[in-house]
Amino acid sequence: MFTDLSPKYRPLSTDTVAAYVHSRPELREVFHDGEPLEAVEVGDGNLNYVFKVWAQADPERTIVLKQALPYLRLVGDSWPLPTDRARIEAQALEIESRLCPQHTPRVYFYDADMYLIAMQNLNHHVIMRKGLIQGIQYPLFADHIGLFLARTLAYTSDLVLDYRTKKLEVARFINPELCKITEDLIFTEPYRYTERNRFHKELEPQVLALQANEALRVEVAKMKEKFMTQAQALIHGDLHTGSVMINQTETYAIDPEFAFYGPMGFDVGAVIGNLLLSYASHEVRTKDAGKQQAFRQYLMNTIIRLWQVFEQEFQKVWDEVDPINMPKGYQQDYMLRVLQDSAGLGACKMMRRVIGLAGVEDIRGIEDVHERAIAGSLALNIAQTLIMNRHDIHTIADLVQMTASCRPSYPWQG
Amino acid sequence: MFTDLSPKYRPLSTDTVAAYVHSRPELREVFHDGEPLEAVEVGDGNLNYVFKVWAQADPERTIVLKQALPYLRLVGDSWPLPTDRARIEAQALEIESRLCPQHTPRVYFYDADMYLIAMQNLNHHVIMRKGLIQGIQYPLFADHIGLFLARTLAYTSDLVLDYRTKKLEVARFINPELCKITEDLIFTEPYRYTERNRFHKELEPQVLALQANEALRVEVAKMKEKFMTQAQALIHGDLHTGSVMINQTETYAIDPEFAFYGPMGFDVGAVIGNLLLSYASHEVRTKDAGKQQAFRQYLMNTIIRLWQVFEQEFQKVWDEVDPINMPKGYQQDYMLRVLQDSAGLGACKMMRRVIGLAGVEDIRGIEDVHERAIAGSLALNIAQTLIMNRHDIHTIADLVQMTASCRPSYPWQG
Repeated sequence: MFTDLSPKYRPLSTDTVAAYVHSRPELREVFHDGEPLEAVEVGDGNLNYVFKVWAQADPERTIVLKQALPYLRLVGDSWPLPTDRARIEAQALEIESRLCPQHTPRVYFYDADMYLIAMQNLNHHVIMRKGLIQGIQYPLFADHIGLFLARTLAYTSDLVLDYRTKKLEVARFINPELCKITEDLIFTEPYRYTERNRFHKELEPQVLALQANEALRVEVAKMKEKFMTQAQALIHGDLHTGSVMINQTETYAIDPEFAFYGPMGFDVGAVIGNLLLSYASHEVRTKDAGKQQAFRQYLMNTIIRLWQVFEQEFQKVWDEVDPINMPKGYQQDYMLRVLQDSAGLGACKMMRRVIGLAGVEDIRGIEDVHERAIAGSLALNIAQTLIMNRHDIHTIADLVQMTASCRPSYPWQG
Repeated sequence: MFTDLSPKYRPLSTDTVAAYVHSRPELREVFHDGEPLEAVEVGDGNLNYVFKVWAQADPERTIVLKQALPYLRLVGDSWPLPTDRARIEAQALEIESRLCPQHTPRVYFYDADMYLIAMQNLNHHVIMRKGLIQGIQYPLFADHIGLFLARTLAYTSDLVLDYRTKKLEVARFINPELCKITEDLIFTEPYRYTERNRFHKELEPQVLALQANEALRVEVAKMKEKFMTQAQALIHGDLHTGSVMINQTETYAIDPEFAFYGPMGFDVGAVIGNLLLSYASHEVRTKDAGKQQAFRQYLMNTIIRLWQVFEQEFQKVWDEVDPINMPKGYQQDYMLRVLQDSAGLGACKMMRRVIGLAGVEDIRGIEDVHERAIAGSLALNIAQTLIMNRHDIHTIADLVQMTASCRPSYPWQG
């Protein structure tokens, strides 16, 4: 299992990290030779060590080291994961930096022996999910992420890349083990009995009904197939609100270790689906009706705006490409398919966050079990509605309206 | 351009081929050491030398050597083609042999320095296209090709391969240069003015109308996108009736140098589309009404039967795979999508054979220019009907009926 490890690989610790940092010439622009450094390990993900390192003399001179572990931390070493994902992440960051530098953390270097990326420490930013849980609004997020999505997706697709480059990129970003996690945890396990599912008893009637719903399972199978076969663009592959570092003026998309050539709607849908999980959570998280309404309005406006920016920035690419081979009617059809994919794929991501192994704090962090069931039930109903009716969505307003019509099924009537 | 050539590469000639054959230990089971051999070069393709070699003492002891040329023969060395396609063909043949040995030529070896495959000489078989032009029926073709399609497509897809193998196979069969030929010649050039198009003046009004038809160009663009992005199965990639060696009892699919991971419907459609080109050609090729009707009935029955066998053999695979993740409704939807893809992609192949650079003898071989225009016009009308109405096709009978309703537009009325 571990035989493919580089002989020079050794997991860093807070004790060894300073020596490592001082050994790297690429970091001389940040740290003075041999100066005292401080470091903490802050990996709250499941796949990696993440060290924040800063100069004792000046905490603003700081970097992050992200080192891949050869197994999935969440379940211990029973689930080995190839360290090749660190290469994938480094190469994806490099492409994102080129296409959208303002929303991609700066990379200092990738160490292929240590499976380690040294990058900008986003120390003036928070994980967006945590902000949304507190009801904080980020007014520029929609514009930023819409631009990031349009540029990273359009410019890595056949619309822009020449035929050879695109196909070589598909091969370079083959990412089987991390795709398998998505295939299992998002598209398979939520729809069957497995010990890894982790929903609360209160939600069981709704989950069992979902799992017995043949029509729903057909639609999910079609989306799994799309995820596994459609090499449309280099997608981030895990663009939930926990992969966004944000403040009131800046937005960064981090952690593209799941990157591969897949359907654009998986990234756009990840953002939308996670905003909708926040929407569902505020059913109970915000008690004040006025505040609840205002925050949900913000979330819905964000979804509308991010799609508009995405479409508008994407149009700039269409305007550059071959108009004979890609007539206007094709462009419209293409964008509509991305929208419907986003609804369906994003909804699949919502489902798994309520039913499956890896939940989200927005909902699982709700302390009261009844309140948690209300939010979870609403999230499942929104997701099911979007999956089953995605082909009726023709504008982003349709998606928002469809969402707004959903209510929780819990507490059960009769 | 040619710098990637192996230093040991040298194009064979009829003078040098015998020495080469005797130097290969893999051929000692066929030829006695040093015995006199005869050879002819018979490559009527555009990409390769093809040598038939046999023992002077016994012509039944015979093989074929296929050697890739580093350029497209049809247009001279102005269109260089990587010799990597010989590796692709050898590896595709190996997979096809494993999955469907009865319809795949035996491979003796692949010589990676010479870009050369030594394989079975199908010396009791003819190129199917030539037989169809003469009005010869092949009663077992439908059963054979239906089986070949089902086994090679289903067993190389995500339905059967494990997640890792499938993705590594996608990377191994990245085939940019030969895919580019298809992208240009099938999906792009027929729908615009280019000097490489080669239709007769008589057809010009219909071709110009096609090229001005925005709705048609939108549908073709969608199918080009599908060809370029949908890594569904390892497809042959060029399965027209010129790639089929046949007699009354046996059928072999040859020449998979265009193989890559693409949509299944491209292969199924190639067979159907080429049978329909034959159908169109017999509008004028067979003058006797009774004979014409009988041969066309044979062609239509063949299309129906090959789809039935394909579906039935494919069902055996469905019966082996995960029924929870792939419920019955999903299986039906999947097969319907393959059918509609086959109609659309096969029709795109028909179009280019009438309008584009590489024609087919069925139609371009018709001597009388008016008769040729009638057959060409009918082929274009069938193709356009299938492209525009493919989503109304729910059974193979629908496809046949749609075809039968088409008539040539030439000679022009009014």
